[in-house]
Amino acid sequence: MSWLDEIKWDEQGLAPVIAQAHDTGRLLTLAWMNREALVATVDENRAVYWSRSRRRLWRKGEKSGYIQHLVELRIDCDADAILLLVGQNGGIACHTGRESCFYRKYEDGTWKTTDPVIKDPMAIYDSLS
Amino acid sequence: MSWLDEIKWDEQGLAPVIAQAHDTGRLLTLAWMNREALVATVDENRAVYWSRSRRRLWRKGEKSGYIQHLVELRIDCDADAILLLVGQNGGIACHTGRESCFYRKYEDGTWKTTDPVIKDPMAIYDSLS
Repeated sequence: MSWLDEIKWDEQGLAPVIAQAHDTGRLLTLAWMNREALVATVDENRAVYWSRSRRRLWRKGEKSGYIQHLVELRIDCDADAILLLVGQNGGIACHTGRESCFYRKYEDGTWKTTDPVIKDPMAIYDSLS
Repeated sequence: MSWLDEIKWDEQGLAPVIAQAHDTGRLLTLAWMNREALVATVDENRAVYWSRSRRRLWRKGEKSGYIQHLVELRIDCDADAILLLVGQNGGIACHTGRESCFYRKYEDGTWKTTDPVIKDPMAIYDSLS
């Protein structure tokens, strides 16, 4: 499909994907997609990423329930980065139980945690595996 | 410096960097940094990226004048992605003369340009090189 071919996938067949909350504008996650993940995202109308660590498709929220509904899909000028505007189920995107994965801020030579845990990850996931 | 060592730079010594407008929340750019670029960003209080195509530090706005003032610097849970909240000079981040590099939206199997050109790139850059 030509819209998929327009994307400049990297040498591993991946592209970085930014997930942004469509309502608050909060930056939630940076993840990765391959062609299959992007097709699944469009078909299923929810964020489906490629997990580089597990080397498989990762339907965001498949374990936690915190799925990301697709609201809008964009690419950048170089066609090598993807932006998803999403509706974040439960308002929690991070596996640490926080709204956003970007919960640490640079301050005087350190990364300071600024955002609260909304829900204990132990209560989100059945196991720590 | 330990805050730099905490970042999981990829095998090429890079990390993806998202630039977001601090005032409007608009996603502007996805670019890349190495250690040197991140240090320069903090030291100079403006976005300094690593240009993968030109293989050199790229002080965003060095030719166009559309520099990105650093307002806040964040990293994600995995410490392999960086977020900059920036003040975008002139309200133009994209080399096409648009506010954001993400000016194309997926619609029915095509990427549709939705955002206007604010300033003709020919008028922004002295040359096309």
